[in-house]
Amino acid sequence: MGTVKRIAVLGSTGSIGQQTLDIVRVWRDRLQVVAVAANRNLELLQKQLKEFQPKMYYAAGELSCDYQAAFTSMEEIASHAEVDLVVVATSGKAGLLPTLAALNAGKVVALANKEILTMAGEILVREANFHGGKILPVDSEHSAVWQCLRGEENRARKIFLTASGGPFYHYSEAQLARVTPAEALRHPTWKMGKKVTIDSATLMNKGLEVIEAHWLFSLPFEGIEVLVHPQCIVHSMVEFVDGSLKAQLSFPDMRLPIQYALSYPERWDNPELPRLDWGRIRALEFEPVDYGRFPCLQLALDAGRMGGTCPAVLCAADEIAVELFLRGRVAFPDIAKIVEKTLSRHSKIAQPSLDEIIAADFWARKYAMQCALGHYEELEAELDTT
Amino acid sequence: MGTVKRIAVLGSTGSIGQQTLDIVRVWRDRLQVVAVAANRNLELLQKQLKEFQPKMYYAAGELSCDYQAAFTSMEEIASHAEVDLVVVATSGKAGLLPTLAALNAGKVVALANKEILTMAGEILVREANFHGGKILPVDSEHSAVWQCLRGEENRARKIFLTASGGPFYHYSEAQLARVTPAEALRHPTWKMGKKVTIDSATLMNKGLEVIEAHWLFSLPFEGIEVLVHPQCIVHSMVEFVDGSLKAQLSFPDMRLPIQYALSYPERWDNPELPRLDWGRIRALEFEPVDYGRFPCLQLALDAGRMGGTCPAVLCAADEIAVELFLRGRVAFPDIAKIVEKTLSRHSKIAQPSLDEIIAADFWARKYAMQCALGHYEELEAELDTT
Repeated sequence: MGTVKRIAVLGSTGSIGQQTLDIVRVWRDRLQVVAVAANRNLELLQKQLKEFQPKMYYAAGELSCDYQAAFTSMEEIASHAEVDLVVVATSGKAGLLPTLAALNAGKVVALANKEILTMAGEILVREANFHGGKILPVDSEHSAVWQCLRGEENRARKIFLTASGGPFYHYSEAQLARVTPAEALRHPTWKMGKKVTIDSATLMNKGLEVIEAHWLFSLPFEGIEVLVHPQCIVHSMVEFVDGSLKAQLSFPDMRLPIQYALSYPERWDNPELPRLDWGRIRALEFEPVDYGRFPCLQLALDAGRMGGTCPAVLCAADEIAVELFLRGRVAFPDIAKIVEKTLSRHSKIAQPSLDEIIAADFWARKYAMQCALGHYEELEAELDTT
Repeated sequence: MGTVKRIAVLGSTGSIGQQTLDIVRVWRDRLQVVAVAANRNLELLQKQLKEFQPKMYYAAGELSCDYQAAFTSMEEIASHAEVDLVVVATSGKAGLLPTLAALNAGKVVALANKEILTMAGEILVREANFHGGKILPVDSEHSAVWQCLRGEENRARKIFLTASGGPFYHYSEAQLARVTPAEALRHPTWKMGKKVTIDSATLMNKGLEVIEAHWLFSLPFEGIEVLVHPQCIVHSMVEFVDGSLKAQLSFPDMRLPIQYALSYPERWDNPELPRLDWGRIRALEFEPVDYGRFPCLQLALDAGRMGGTCPAVLCAADEIAVELFLRGRVAFPDIAKIVEKTLSRHSKIAQPSLDEIIAADFWARKYAMQCALGHYEELEAELDTT
């Protein structure tokens, strides 16, 4: 039998982290969890320690059990000699430094945290190339593109990222203004964390994915299009220079792209994964995306094209705005307004260092919070008139 | 620059042959026509000789011009030392011996003549493997599967061949009985020869494709499914062991799979090939095929499963039945009846030699003609009661 891959799961208590462990449970002879790390849900982390008995763990707080082998940071774990593959399933900017540490140590990173490439794509790609690290996508869309590019020497001419459109794609402006956090969290198709569910509803998620794809596949922004596809069966498509396209399809279940990243270059026959049933599929629908109605997507594309520190500012402002929306402090359409305002006040630094990115992130969080909570009326007035 | 591929086009005056030459016209620096061959349309053949100035040609009749370099058979051309790739764009059984000659000589064969693999798949695959010859599919469905399998080490678990369903997919039995040759030749989507257009309308074409796929991709019949897809944009799909599928899509234009077979492993950016316009595509529809209403498909699957000389008998009887339908001598539903009757009277030979296949073909042609024209009332009566 082949060798066992030793994996570290950063963000093991989140949605992607838990589904990663579901895959490991099926393939104990091929995958070994050597590390887990979590920030918040320490109770679940303790259960995971008990079940998987990893050599290392990192927790943001004190555990009640006396499990040995705690590490002081996720970076230490990510670059540890006994780790072959690091699953970065954190959210927001939390995974940035561990990802960088893993790539610096020449590890394979299965990346589920899309803000990281958005914030610091240029630095991460450079580090990976220099130190022999590899970034494998876990997002269903990027996994689809990656699968479609398999075995193709030619670069793609274009990629089409599909978007469910989220639960509010056909809402009026008045309806959008009344959307509650509870409604927004009811995503019809995917089982996901809160942040990404809200980002899906604003289409910010798709914007971050475009920036991520730009870095993962070395494609210009003109070569990346978004198509609304409500059935979530075609996970993305690649158009080659001869006009032929490949699409990757599957039942919408994150365990499939997670397993593909873990099994690559193999594919494993996992009986627990659902199959598409062509006896029940009738139509796969597609629709060009309406940029005007979902300003977050356009904001993300603009930030991606501007480059430099702008995508980091976009991510930071969005993270704050989504958190405020989830706490009921701002309305759904305010998310885009907060991000727009923050971006408009940012002085871009081109080809920033990591420190400059972190500083921009810090500034943007503060500014977004301020403009949302402190001077909200002013913000409103300004955006209405300019 | 790379080397120039020297190609022989057998059946150069047919639909696929002409479209092959269209591709060559765009890529004169990469493709060189060193031979053409045709059976019927000698006027067009003479024009092609004048334009492409090939070193060799074969014609079934006398040419009026005095072009040198005639050969006495397509087999000679197909195995000639100065040929790198043989496009077999003949129809019916005409391409069988030339294809065998090409594979025996270790050539690459771009195969557009689906009856050949159906008749003698086992022999052809064996000869290709033994002599280092290669069969590249040109059919849009098999090209799609081949493209989807590119770079995948794992065998597919299943393939889905798509079918437009033809122009009569939703006709009643009474309507089918009145279909005229002129109606049947009006295929809504593809530009094709007459034989394959009628075969598309009866779904015999899809049945032949299933048998062809069985040999091309070493898949059992249980691993090949047919899905009706009226838009003809998804040309086929492959399901891998992990439940992930890949589909190949393009504007329905045979020049695309023809060029892919000629350019492989490269892909060429040909401005004359149409692109899909996602601003206009709204829905891709799928429907499990209704075997009961189109008996030719089921007959083909049965013949494929029985193996031996049965697929050759199927092809021969179909070729005669289609020709009789085109000449107005039998009705549209009689095509299936003639094939069924001929198959039911055939004594199968398992693992037949080439001679046995040719003898079965000969017998089936004679029998199909006889039962259609000589004793048609008997045939009708028999099929109604048994």
